[in-house]
Amino acid sequence: MQVFVTGAAGFIGSNLVDRLLAESHTVTAYDNLSTGQPRFLEQAHQHSTFQFINGDLLDLPRLTEALAGHDFVFHLAANADVRFGTEHPRKDLEQNTIATFHVLEAMRANGVRRIGFSSTGSIYGEPDVFPTPENAPFPVQTSLYGASKLAGEGLIQAYCTGFGFQGYIFRFVSILGERYTHGHVFDFYRKLSADPTRITVLGNGKQRKSYLYVQDCVDAILTVIERAQDPINMYNLGTNQYCAVDDSLGWICEYLGVTPERQYSGGERGWIGDSPFIFLDTSKVRALGWQPKLSIREGVIKTLEYLQANQWVLAQRAGQTL
Amino acid sequence: MQVFVTGAAGFIGSNLVDRLLAESHTVTAYDNLSTGQPRFLEQAHQHSTFQFINGDLLDLPRLTEALAGHDFVFHLAANADVRFGTEHPRKDLEQNTIATFHVLEAMRANGVRRIGFSSTGSIYGEPDVFPTPENAPFPVQTSLYGASKLAGEGLIQAYCTGFGFQGYIFRFVSILGERYTHGHVFDFYRKLSADPTRITVLGNGKQRKSYLYVQDCVDAILTVIERAQDPINMYNLGTNQYCAVDDSLGWICEYLGVTPERQYSGGERGWIGDSPFIFLDTSKVRALGWQPKLSIREGVIKTLEYLQANQWVLAQRAGQTL
Repeated sequence: MQVFVTGAAGFIGSNLVDRLLAESHTVTAYDNLSTGQPRFLEQAHQHSTFQFINGDLLDLPRLTEALAGHDFVFHLAANADVRFGTEHPRKDLEQNTIATFHVLEAMRANGVRRIGFSSTGSIYGEPDVFPTPENAPFPVQTSLYGASKLAGEGLIQAYCTGFGFQGYIFRFVSILGERYTHGHVFDFYRKLSADPTRITVLGNGKQRKSYLYVQDCVDAILTVIERAQDPINMYNLGTNQYCAVDDSLGWICEYLGVTPERQYSGGERGWIGDSPFIFLDTSKVRALGWQPKLSIREGVIKTLEYLQANQWVLAQRAGQTL
Repeated sequence: MQVFVTGAAGFIGSNLVDRLLAESHTVTAYDNLSTGQPRFLEQAHQHSTFQFINGDLLDLPRLTEALAGHDFVFHLAANADVRFGTEHPRKDLEQNTIATFHVLEAMRANGVRRIGFSSTGSIYGEPDVFPTPENAPFPVQTSLYGASKLAGEGLIQAYCTGFGFQGYIFRFVSILGERYTHGHVFDFYRKLSADPTRITVLGNGKQRKSYLYVQDCVDAILTVIERAQDPINMYNLGTNQYCAVDDSLGWICEYLGVTPERQYSGGERGWIGDSPFIFLDTSKVRALGWQPKLSIREGVIKTLEYLQANQWVLAQRAGQTL
């Protein structure tokens, strides 16, 4: 396939690109490098079937030109920052909702009709059903990030019905592993590296979350696209486990050999719009024959190994204004 | 209350404005008159507590200035054209999704935190559950209009959580009655006025839809806002009836005293994205003490009486490019 990947220099995007190239697909990476890292594409650049375009999704003419001649679009570019949405509401609108609209319009202009989309378990808000299935009761959004992903899902679905597109919508739990650049493991690792004697935990530490290792995530995405053939396909991606923030912090401390004093900011949510319990029902994707190879704990360890071996990621991240 | 109404010169907006003024509220009407009719606000202009602003929701500075000092915003402005969405996808994005974002941002800038929003039963796509309750299984969008309303709902919910807003989201069936300017009664009336001997019906005529009389709709909106006090309130509005397009056409023909030959375009949908069956569960709003006064048939008759007495509406509409 001739595959077009937005957000290709990001965490999940670059891992997907490497896999696609390994499987002999031709890949065009499109990324504005606002958070993506050129170094994440170093392996990709060794393939003659790879090209990189430094472009912005808000530049529709450029996107439309770049997208010509492809068979499939993975739209992974996004403002993935769920926690700070209320500080800049326009960012989720532009980088997620409008950007997704542009991807769809560029596809339509080029007759490209297959799209895979990185949605989120956050779209379920604070659900009543656990594990939460894809057809959970109509959710209520609790974050601007979730709202913008919901808008993206709705647009893709409408293009499937209205323009004969085929859509693959992936609702991720938090992803862990190589090239991980934000989230609680990152934050805890950075804080404990600076001061191993104490750690501040957002919320009461009892928030329960689910995680998935990035290589398992990429496996799942490719399995679904190969085997699911409805016009519109929604799939939760996650493990059938969850853990408390305190558990995860315990594994991190054990790995680093530190015993910090834990201080809690309090409350059952880490921030406004944080969901105290995320646990997705993944029986639909498992029914296609996929299952994760790593447990949550193993994913956390892989992430720590990566961060230790790639200190530049932490330095890079520190330079960003969030 | 100091009430701000977007889309105030529209069908539902102008009826709501009249009611608000009759109940002694101060009303600012904000409308760009792209589809709204100045004549719909003739009654309103007789009140000293009414003011009209000819403004566009995409003009955020103007909107922000206009919205200052109000207590409650009814955001009814929208591209309400569900049928032709695929001819101009950007219209739903701009006039519905981005416009709703602007309303929320203008409210936030002014410290205004209560909003009522006209959503739609179309947001349920093609549901499996009838009558369809507010907590139906997570829907799949089948139209750009539905997708844009879903995006609007999500944004409002996120602002409720993130910024302490209080939101009232109304999922309407099709509304009928005075100042009705588009939809199947309008189309049938216009066609039969031109040629009473034949009529073309989109689809097979067996599509089942639900309708609500506009005065009942306004009653329901005001009942919900008075009695529902959650931070985020979703309410279906409709009657507990539905009818087939053929039934409705029969009532129209009977009223007009015509017996046209019926020709069907065929298929169980009138157009791409049309839902063959819309029937909302309205037990939630009924539990607040509201019930509709008119049946669907009575609503259709009221609409015909209005169109007969206001032929200018048909002429006005014919001049618009849709």
